Amino acid sequence: MQNFPAGLSKAEIDRVRNELQTKTARLTSPELEEILYKPFPVLDHGFIRVTDYMGTDASIVQAARVSYGVGTKKVQEDQSLINYLMRHQHTTPFEMCEIKLHIKLPIFVARHWLRHRTASVNEYSARYSILSGEFYLPEISQLAQQSETNKQGKSSREFNRADADEVVNILEKFCEDARESYSHMLNDLSLARELARIVLPVAVYTEMYWKIDLHNLMHFLKLRSSPNAQYEIRCYANIILEILKKWLPFTYEAFVNYKQDAVFVSKKSADLIKRMLRGEKIVWEESGLSKGEWQEFKTTFELKD
Amino acid sequence: MQNFPAGLSKAEIDRVRNELQTKTARLTSPELEEILYKPFPVLDHGFIRVTDYMGTDASIVQAARVSYGVGTKKVQEDQSLINYLMRHQHTTPFEMCEIKLHIKLPIFVARHWLRHRTASVNEYSARYSILSGEFYLPEISQLAQQSETNKQGKSSREFNRADADEVVNILEKFCEDARESYSHMLNDLSLARELARIVLPVAVYTEMYWKIDLHNLMHFLKLRSSPNAQYEIRCYANIILEILKKWLPFTYEAFVNYKQDAVFVSKKSADLIKRMLRGEKIVWEESGLSKGEWQEFKTTFELKD
Amino acid sequence: MQNFPAGLSKAEIDRVRNELQTKTARLTSPELEEILYKPFPVLDHGFIRVTDYMGTDASIVQAARVSYGVGTKKVQEDQSLINYLMRHQHTTPFEMCEIKLHIKLPIFVARHWLRHRTASVNEYSARYSILSGEFYLPEISQLAQQSETNKQGKSSREFNRADADEVVNILEKFCEDARESYSHMLNDLSLARELARIVLPVAVYTEMYWKIDLHNLMHFLKLRSSPNAQYEIRCYANIILEILKKWLPFTYEAFVNYKQDAVFVSKKSADLIKRMLRGEKIVWEESGLSKGEWQEFKTTFELKD
Amino acid sequence: MQNFPAGLSKAEIDRVRNELQTKTARLTSPELEEILYKPFPVLDHGFIRVTDYMGTDASIVQAARVSYGVGTKKVQEDQSLINYLMRHQHTTPFEMCEIKLHIKLPIFVARHWLRHRTASVNEYSARYSILSGEFYLPEISQLAQQSETNKQGKSSREFNRADADEVVNILEKFCEDARESYSHMLNDLSLARELARIVLPVAVYTEMYWKIDLHNLMHFLKLRSSPNAQYEIRCYANIILEILKKWLPFTYEAFVNYKQDAVFVSKKSADLIKRMLRGEKIVWEESGLSKGEWQEFKTTFELKD
Repeated sequence: MQNFPAGLSKAEIDRVRNELQTKTARLTSPELEEILYKPFPVLDHGFIRVTDYMGTDASIVQAARVSYGVGTKKVQEDQSLINYLMRHQHTTPFEMCEIKLHIKLPIFVARHWLRHRTASVNEYSARYSILSGEFYLPEISQLAQQSETNKQGKSSREFNRADADEVVNILEKFCEDARESYSHMLNDLSLARELARIVLPVAVYTEMYWKIDLHNLMHFLKLRSSPNAQYEIRCYANIILEILKKWLPFTYEAFVNYKQDAVFVSKKSADLIKRMLRGEKIVWEESGLSKGEWQEFKTTFELKD
Repeated sequence: MQNFPAGLSKAEIDRVRNELQTKTARLTSPELEEILYKPFPVLDHGFIRVTDYMGTDASIVQAARVSYGVGTKKVQEDQSLINYLMRHQHTTPFEMCEIKLHIKLPIFVARHWLRHRTASVNEYSARYSILSGEFYLPEISQLAQQSETNKQGKSSREFNRADADEVVNILEKFCEDARESYSHMLNDLSLARELARIVLPVAVYTEMYWKIDLHNLMHFLKLRSSPNAQYEIRCYANIILEILKKWLPFTYEAFVNYKQDAVFVSKKSADLIKRMLRGEKIVWEESGLSKGEWQEFKTTFELKD
Repeated sequence: MQNFPAGLSKAEIDRVRNELQTKTARLTSPELEEILYKPFPVLDHGFIRVTDYMGTDASIVQAARVSYGVGTKKVQEDQSLINYLMRHQHTTPFEMCEIKLHIKLPIFVARHWLRHRTASVNEYSARYSILSGEFYLPEISQLAQQSETNKQGKSSREFNRADADEVVNILEKFCEDARESYSHMLNDLSLARELARIVLPVAVYTEMYWKIDLHNLMHFLKLRSSPNAQYEIRCYANIILEILKKWLPFTYEAFVNYKQDAVFVSKKSADLIKRMLRGEKIVWEESGLSKGEWQEFKTTFELKD
Repeated sequence: MQNFPAGLSKAEIDRVRNELQTKTARLTSPELEEILYKPFPVLDHGFIRVTDYMGTDASIVQAARVSYGVGTKKVQEDQSLINYLMRHQHTTPFEMCEIKLHIKLPIFVARHWLRHRTASVNEYSARYSILSGEFYLPEISQLAQQSETNKQGKSSREFNRADADEVVNILEKFCEDARESYSHMLNDLSLARELARIVLPVAVYTEMYWKIDLHNLMHFLKLRSSPNAQYEIRCYANIILEILKKWLPFTYEAFVNYKQDAVFVSKKSADLIKRMLRGEKIVWEESGLSKGEWQEFKTTFELKD
């Protein structure tokens, strides 16, 4: 039986890829085939690799034509149909594609990730197996940047270079301790795996197979590639965006325009836009928006005071 | 862009299959490739054909090994691992495979079908397109058989050959009328499609693309291939069972033994079995089971009175 | 055991409502309690009634405060928090409320309805029970209006009053025939219920209990109260909107502003708005939009040529 | 607006319970009302409390009667209908009930918990809020017991009392270090919350609101109250079982008999039982079962060698 173990070297992956080469009559994405099974590095020890997929841009078109009967129209280009579907939030045809990824990631990232429920997952189990003991250690530049934005109105004190060095030292030492305690309790004291692992910090790396349909994948990407998402999961989302671009070029373009960078405008804000486009000057007091919303509105449409 | 229209002749299907042939490094099921896109007839006008799939028996094994760490054990045969997973209801690895079917079926069958919610569907829309006007007409042998079992305690009157003939006449005439009314309201009176279709009986055929993961497919097959399911949907389920056998031979065997023909035994019934296996004679009054459950118990284990 | 049968008279409903009155420490919506169990008529024979619910606006606030830690902020009004959640598409707190409806509706409406998969349903079964034989008959005014909009580029012929009369005659006669055939095959010929029902047109009424969480309910309402939805399901959606208003007044208001009447603006369109708000004049040729999208853009923001 | 903050004293809970008391015409479970909002302690720092619910045993009966038309039968007792539904795996009526729990639990337990995807969750966010710094510390008796069963074929060395003491020391010291590092990085170094928390071990407690329907709850309970589940999550499952018993007494009884303690018998094993009940003696070599399955079979039915 064919099988594909994780953790192979580049040469081995090429060998296995060659061995697996076979004929299919299924729709095939040539660019995605190029990178099948090849790991893309993420963060310090993580990776993402595509291990399987189903469907192409053509599968979406095909499903839509059954459903919306658009096949009855004579000349309807595939790309503009995909744009149309995305623009009007006809989501079911996008469910017809699937992708399966093998991902290595820290537990705190996995915890955000698995909040997306409409997906299939098999994760490495620390009840049955011994974790590698690799931990995520943020880069120094990240420490400052995230501390700036994730302060949530706390102290006004600046996070400086000396702080960063100390944090790195703490994290390094701490993870070293965790690794040792884990190993000692397992090997010297014969403690159950399921208990020994409770000392492991959420920075420890785990692995999973994750399978999701395209509609739900795009929802994941919209949320997790957003500037509001935590930096670490954004790194993963950005790699998947690159993968999406290779896999489904038309869908990728439509996604960027109609979903990722699209703007959701409330009824009240849309009414303001209409009035402003007719030449009205509007100040906050007359806008009917809350202070926060008015600020968001101005930022979104690059309005000056 | 590659595409694959429905309703092709056998020769055309062969031609398209050939055109689509390409290389892939994905796991491939040779037997399923043989029948890809080819329609299997069901009932009088229906069909099922596989239009895409993802994964093989090996994909299940691979996912399980990440998750349950069973890869750490040296010699664990793939087939016995699949048996083990099925026996112990470890369902997530089976979600790693997907299949996409193109199905033509009467609306009353589709209504049962779509009660299975964890699947993706694009159905032909009678709001936007004109339905074919093909109707399901049961065979005479079926009329009697189903009337025997689906009486639900009604009249004891036998359904006879003359009845069957009359029913067939009624159904034929009725469907002819529906077809004419539909067509007349659409074409001569320019009534909206979405309204004209409300005269169509639930015997009318519709089409859909249906994509589902293997775990949910097996649940569907368990319920819809059971003798309790209505005959018409059972015909479809039986075809899909044949497809499953080609696609995933190990999983198919495990499914039959551990799911389709398996027996769910309540705690109380299991206790009865234990006592009987120790040589006790048990009569209903001492069994602790309701009359109906006792009857089911005896039937299941072929006990005499 | 308490129970609540369908199809009661107004007086009986009041009696049962009184009998059921009891104390609870659960969060309670006073306005929704007023209408509990009372049917709202829809179309010619349909209805909707609330048979149970869980949660109030306060439940959403409570869940959000655990999750987003916004409880740490001192003065955050409940209503503005609900607005904030809706505006930023933080959907999980809205899943904390549930509503259960008892609905009587034609099968073709139920078919659209049940495409919403994240809900629980028990529908009347025509395999086991005999359908009432009530059919939906559209009003004459509707026939013309829908035929105008659901033509899908077909004939330019006007649908006139004489056509409408003929359609109504056809539908009436047809449904009468269906009712008679159904009844004759069941009662005189002892045909199985599951087969006799295949003559019933999709205009026949069925009943169901439908339970859904608030997040998915709002998605349903967004799609099914839209002018693009078929008139008949819109009638149901509009009743549910009234129910929502009584149940969760803050959520209802936020829904209307941020979801139902909100506008989804693509990146390209948002860029156009920015430029126009700075005073640029833009014509289609420079817009980068397709013809159809440009038209939609102008309509949305009420731009003149 | 009514609201119910977490972390109240017993007296405060009683006061809030009294304040919230109001009338409802919804179906109400008197025994569950008694414990509403009251926390049940689990492990060293955890708890479970019911914060809302919808439906009673009667809601299940009501939904089933619409669907399976069993209402047509005159005398069908509610309890035996619930037994019937559970025995025949008619699961949809059980979806008509919902429960919402507030749970405090260690992260490694939450990770197992949230693998159950068909539920709604709002979890305390360590990106936005500061974690309490309470850690789970297993009892000494547990250390030995779990190490016995979760060894997975590892060393044959016995886990002894001295080992246990050492493990407890390590865990205590380790958690103290984690708490200090976390606090130091947050407060003294102004590190972002989302980064400071990565040192926290998976033994740290978190909180969540968890809402689930009864069908999915029973699936959760079946898996997580099983001896194969890790001890810590079993403690939570056992409390929920007590809650279920108060909430839905008929369903609880049916659950124990037909689900929790029921036995899944493969086709092959069922055939063996039939033969043995007819008096045949069967040895493994003739059984057609694998060695492992034969062993399980003998254990299940208490067969001697």
